[in-house]
Amino acid sequence: MRVLGIDCGSQRTGYGVIDSDGADHRMVVAGVICTSPKWPFEKRLLEIANGLRSLIREHHPEFGAVEEVFHAANAKTALKLAHVRGVALLAIAEAGVGFAEYSPLEVKMSVVGYGRAEKSQVQVMVRSLLHLSEAIASEDASDALAIAICHATHEATSRRLA
Amino acid sequence: MRVLGIDCGSQRTGYGVIDSDGADHRMVVAGVICTSPKWPFEKRLLEIANGLRSLIREHHPEFGAVEEVFHAANAKTALKLAHVRGVALLAIAEAGVGFAEYSPLEVKMSVVGYGRAEKSQVQVMVRSLLHLSEAIASEDASDALAIAICHATHEATSRRLA
Repeated sequence: MRVLGIDCGSQRTGYGVIDSDGADHRMVVAGVICTSPKWPFEKRLLEIANGLRSLIREHHPEFGAVEEVFHAANAKTALKLAHVRGVALLAIAEAGVGFAEYSPLEVKMSVVGYGRAEKSQVQVMVRSLLHLSEAIASEDASDALAIAICHATHEATSRRLA
Repeated sequence: MRVLGIDCGSQRTGYGVIDSDGADHRMVVAGVICTSPKWPFEKRLLEIANGLRSLIREHHPEFGAVEEVFHAANAKTALKLAHVRGVALLAIAEAGVGFAEYSPLEVKMSVVGYGRAEKSQVQVMVRSLLHLSEAIASEDASDALAIAICHATHEATSRRLA
């Protein structure tokens, strides 16, 4: 299956597409959609939406997965993030791609095997799970790949159970 | 000028289009985009986005205006609302329509002349300002019209000052 993981952020939205059978994962593409804080917020949302739409058009993922939005964090940041997340969910729904969401804990559990893993541990495990010879330059892209791996693993398990 | 006011909500998104010279306002259209809580959230966002896109295509507003999102309210509700608001801002940006946002206080001040006005007072004033012979059936549509009136008034004032 092909999965697009999205790590939403108003300044930096990470993305990562993987091919996976649930156990073995290969990276197709990963990167970051950057927007400038100098742009009006609605223009930034448009840039993110168009970036995700291009990705979906080019790589035809079966699923789009994002992290659940956290209520506990700084309220203003969480609200901004929810706007971006709304746009990401819309891009997924527009393309008729399956949608899945996971908590940060589930993502870390599935990639590192430990829910309170640090960012650097996630990066190391993502690199290892995807058999990459070089480190992933961007933390946001790595986080997006982790979300994609999490979904691939969960989806494979549900298929096996079904 | 023609203004589209949007009152975002995941179950009910009110909309109202007015023509205005800043002092005299006329309603073009108003209503509500309803989505079912039974639908997956991403499908509801898609329904709202497509509803707003149709409206913009049909009525060609110069401006789209929405209320600022409130931080104080129930965190879960505010986050859901922010998703819808992200989609509304995207629809506005996609169409190249001017974007404006106002606090609930500004909207009430501009329509009722009193920032702590009750919902029913807003409804009465919206009806009166738009010279409507009948009451507006939906509170969400009335709130959206209030936002549109607020922007028309502010925009006219800024033009006069410029």
